[in-house]
Amino acid sequence: MPRRNLYLTNIPVEEALERFKNALEPHVKAQTEDIEVIHSLDRVTASAILARCNSPLYDSAAMDGVAVVSAATHGASETCPLTLKHGVDFIHVDTGDPVKPPFDAVIMAEDINDTGCGDIIIRSAAAAWQHIRPVGEDVVQGEMILPGGHKIRPIDIGVLLSGGVTRISAQKRPEVAIIPTGTELAEPGDTLKEGDIIESNSRMFEALVRKGGGLPTRFAPVADDYGLIKDALQNAARRFDLVLVSAGTSAGREDYTASILRELGEVTVHGVAMKPGKPVILAVVNGKPVVGVPGYPVSAYLAYENFAAPILASFSGLPESCAPIVRAVLTRRLVSSFKHREYVRVKVGRVGGRLVASPLARGAGAAMSLVRADGFCVINRDSEGVEAGGEVDVILNRRPQDLEHTVVSIGSHDLLLDLIADMMPNLYPGIHLSSTHVGSMGGLLSLKNGEAHIAPIHLLDEATGTYNIQIIKKLFGKSPMALIKGVGRVQGIMVQKGNPLGIAGIGDLTRCRYINRQRGAGTRLLFDYRLKSKGISPENITGYDREAATHMSVAAAINGGSADAGMGILSAAMAMGLDFIPVGDERYDFAIAAESLELSHIRAFIGTLKSPGLLAKLKELGGYTADNCGEIVIIDC
Amino acid sequence: MPRRNLYLTNIPVEEALERFKNALEPHVKAQTEDIEVIHSLDRVTASAILARCNSPLYDSAAMDGVAVVSAATHGASETCPLTLKHGVDFIHVDTGDPVKPPFDAVIMAEDINDTGCGDIIIRSAAAAWQHIRPVGEDVVQGEMILPGGHKIRPIDIGVLLSGGVTRISAQKRPEVAIIPTGTELAEPGDTLKEGDIIESNSRMFEALVRKGGGLPTRFAPVADDYGLIKDALQNAARRFDLVLVSAGTSAGREDYTASILRELGEVTVHGVAMKPGKPVILAVVNGKPVVGVPGYPVSAYLAYENFAAPILASFSGLPESCAPIVRAVLTRRLVSSFKHREYVRVKVGRVGGRLVASPLARGAGAAMSLVRADGFCVINRDSEGVEAGGEVDVILNRRPQDLEHTVVSIGSHDLLLDLIADMMPNLYPGIHLSSTHVGSMGGLLSLKNGEAHIAPIHLLDEATGTYNIQIIKKLFGKSPMALIKGVGRVQGIMVQKGNPLGIAGIGDLTRCRYINRQRGAGTRLLFDYRLKSKGISPENITGYDREAATHMSVAAAINGGSADAGMGILSAAMAMGLDFIPVGDERYDFAIAAESLELSHIRAFIGTLKSPGLLAKLKELGGYTADNCGEIVIIDC
Repeated sequence: MPRRNLYLTNIPVEEALERFKNALEPHVKAQTEDIEVIHSLDRVTASAILARCNSPLYDSAAMDGVAVVSAATHGASETCPLTLKHGVDFIHVDTGDPVKPPFDAVIMAEDINDTGCGDIIIRSAAAAWQHIRPVGEDVVQGEMILPGGHKIRPIDIGVLLSGGVTRISAQKRPEVAIIPTGTELAEPGDTLKEGDIIESNSRMFEALVRKGGGLPTRFAPVADDYGLIKDALQNAARRFDLVLVSAGTSAGREDYTASILRELGEVTVHGVAMKPGKPVILAVVNGKPVVGVPGYPVSAYLAYENFAAPILASFSGLPESCAPIVRAVLTRRLVSSFKHREYVRVKVGRVGGRLVASPLARGAGAAMSLVRADGFCVINRDSEGVEAGGEVDVILNRRPQDLEHTVVSIGSHDLLLDLIADMMPNLYPGIHLSSTHVGSMGGLLSLKNGEAHIAPIHLLDEATGTYNIQIIKKLFGKSPMALIKGVGRVQGIMVQKGNPLGIAGIGDLTRCRYINRQRGAGTRLLFDYRLKSKGISPENITGYDREAATHMSVAAAINGGSADAGMGILSAAMAMGLDFIPVGDERYDFAIAAESLELSHIRAFIGTLKSPGLLAKLKELGGYTADNCGEIVIIDC
Repeated sequence: MPRRNLYLTNIPVEEALERFKNALEPHVKAQTEDIEVIHSLDRVTASAILARCNSPLYDSAAMDGVAVVSAATHGASETCPLTLKHGVDFIHVDTGDPVKPPFDAVIMAEDINDTGCGDIIIRSAAAAWQHIRPVGEDVVQGEMILPGGHKIRPIDIGVLLSGGVTRISAQKRPEVAIIPTGTELAEPGDTLKEGDIIESNSRMFEALVRKGGGLPTRFAPVADDYGLIKDALQNAARRFDLVLVSAGTSAGREDYTASILRELGEVTVHGVAMKPGKPVILAVVNGKPVVGVPGYPVSAYLAYENFAAPILASFSGLPESCAPIVRAVLTRRLVSSFKHREYVRVKVGRVGGRLVASPLARGAGAAMSLVRADGFCVINRDSEGVEAGGEVDVILNRRPQDLEHTVVSIGSHDLLLDLIADMMPNLYPGIHLSSTHVGSMGGLLSLKNGEAHIAPIHLLDEATGTYNIQIIKKLFGKSPMALIKGVGRVQGIMVQKGNPLGIAGIGDLTRCRYINRQRGAGTRLLFDYRLKSKGISPENITGYDREAATHMSVAAAINGGSADAGMGILSAAMAMGLDFIPVGDERYDFAIAAESLELSHIRAFIGTLKSPGLLAKLKELGGYTADNCGEIVIIDC
């Protein structure tokens, strides 16, 4: 068994790709094939395509009416109408009909009068060639219709056919092998046993390859066995144009991929200065490019986009990416790691005239943050990072125009936000909710900085015992603010089903494994407040420093058995089937600048809060009161 | 046979669509179906999709290394290393392996030393939960992965599978019938006889429907027979979700479509205030939407985009269009027709920091201009039009970033431009040529107005007998200008093969049917100059006022027999197999501002002009001299 290779190289992204392309250069050649024009949508022309015939094929009527001999119409006027004889001076034509000598002009149907006996009367002369589409007006035989390297659109198909072209030479669609490896892999839908990981990256690659114009073939997962993986790779490099081998690229005990590729061919790069996605392998086997992609989904995605996509593009002739790029103001400081180029997932929206980008989770495993992201911003390795308020380029994965109709919410998370995100675009087509979860206090700071339209919060004022309004008054001073009423919900202690440790209240939390929420979360502030009231020091709570980012994550940890208790809301406990000891009721509302209330997408947000469908869903979830959901409270300052 | 209906309504576009949607409202409902996630790329979710399991499924190692009991590591330091016992204090784990009690932290492989006998030495303590991905960190069971109405991307497929979801409810792909009608239609590839029109619109619609997420079924062309068309429509409206019937929508003698639709169902609109595309029919038959699209390709395209695409989108759940919109400066005045909303095809490029849009041909038949266009600008019916230099919104049909690397050429046309458009992106990936043909003089004016990078010209200075340089000096005065050398070419008189009229020179053109070039074209100026030298008045030239826009169009008219002679270049005569009487040699070069010479895409343009491949192609075409192609002449002022 080969040695575990702990140390990967740290080659900059561009240099890694350059080395890979150079290693491939002697081997790789785009191939072409003849295809039918009617099946050519989205294919790429291999060379310039010339018209085989004229369009129109002949001089033809551009209007419905009559074809005339222009010389025979001279002198016709309102005061001196002229009668034309059918078959001699004129014939009837519809748009597109041929016009042949002696006829050399067309008069529109609207400008003629029937005599009733087959002839017509005209009241103005026709100029030669009027209302005639000359032969080849649109396309002349021999003219270039499309250049080489052009991706074929619907209109191109129409014009190619009109120009007499029925078959064209196109770039061949590259065939891509996708080989998932790992003994722990289970197929989606399998009954899962402990230690299983659902194999999903290969299915993402299939879709990415299709998007990139390739033909993917996904292999069945291969166990972590040197011989089996070697056979699969050897086989794939023989039959396919590009091979993606998934996982096993790092320094784990069973990460054979690099050793096998070294045995079969040449490893050009193993380890790239990129985060996530460092443990990439770029190799050439049998003259074919092989990309070893790491197992973490975000790493896998970035490794694909940076290394597999450009190679695929060079085969397929398609551009690598159609992602639009926008400038946006960053809401949080992003430090550079100096060692790596970092890809930071961000949410983007337009707030107060500026596009603002809020960074999401940075972990390589956080695939959901990739789903939720509106795009990436790139922090280069040699950069100083970007301060909050600085501008960054964002590579979008949605349409720029959608950002204009997006409600930007930054603050505390509740399932209510998911319901709104789901229902609002149905009720108000084109309007979306973009929500980032940083806790109540973080949300209010973003609102103050003009980075969000609304901040969902649940913050108790200890002095008055009221929720949300006092903190807004305190933070925003004289700026006119409002509160959009959300829901009442029950906070409490979530424990395992049956409450095996017999926890009855805050006081019992000193004798169990607790899981806390992150700093700035309203639930954590509530917990701290309750601890203080009881005179309990955080030091006496095992797990006080163990943080989870949402109610549901806390519930999942308790359900999984790695923690015994955590504070959260009733609906989360119910969703996960946990027992629940109520601690108190609280308000979860939306802070907003009063001037934003008139924005059309905020009105849609409020309309959604008030919709009967939403209230029905909340009732179904349980644990909520929603009597005044969507009501507006103007906050006096 | 029904009466010819000469007069269509002129309903504004939005109102027409609104009426259509209202008429459909009682009938049309999006349908859903269950599909496999692995086949769900680009499909649209019918409702919110919730995770069925946690991801990760359990607390798992976030690094390759060892899982430890954090309490057992306390006190370890550089000065006081600690030995951990295998199986008791630690076990080996790879990334993704489960970490179960008593283990509650992971130490990275890099931070441990093997003792050689199975145990390890550590030099720092491990904090509880370090390097562990908690259960559900990425996705928690019950959490919303995707909202309803979401178009599924590759990354979504990965996360859905990770979240235990293998099947989802998606919007059904609408089935669309496409019925071409017309006795004159020939199938692409058929041997053509007089009066035939190649049926190509239905193939464009097939591709448009596919792009819009629908499943197209194209019917064989139906002859202009009332009964046959009625049968086809009745049949289609029974089986399909949407019916497109192509041509026969206007006021021609055999335009039955509206009458038939009135018999079968309800015609909501016949005639829309839109240009091109006025004779649209919007009807409801058997509760199904039927769109009658005009036969002219550009009208057909616009009718589809404005009326069929929105209906398809409401079925498929996909957005109607992903076309980016940019602001650009208009190079020519566009007047409003007041009566119609007009869609003007434009070329777009970035010149001197501004995006500039040059209008192309406006005819409904000019499908090639749709192929060549970078987008549309819309002149609304109630507007005043837009002056040259005014700003317009352009709906792009290419990527905005491509515009940044596009050489904008406005001026005279030569096949050389087609060759460059084809070859340059191959030689210089990502760099494109956008060329608009308005003749030499028009090109120089555009160059002067900062609307183009280069102006291809062939303009004789009568005083010196030299080409191109004198006119630049005269027009640009003290601005530093240059000329990029193009080709020498032979101008002459093109006549039918065998020269049946025995034309020997300019003097003979008084006794034949001439076809001229448009005003401002260098060839026309040359013709005028030669006429004047011979003392011939234009009035003595039959067809002096008949204008064609390119050499090839002139050649096509002569080849088709509707003209006997026209001036043009040898290569055009050769391409069309015409006889040619040389009149003189001329220079076809590129005027440019000296400061533009350093732009990277201009360097690419010059590089292409100098490339051996281009010179070989010119030789193959014949009729050119290219000794100093790509050389730069700085023009002294």
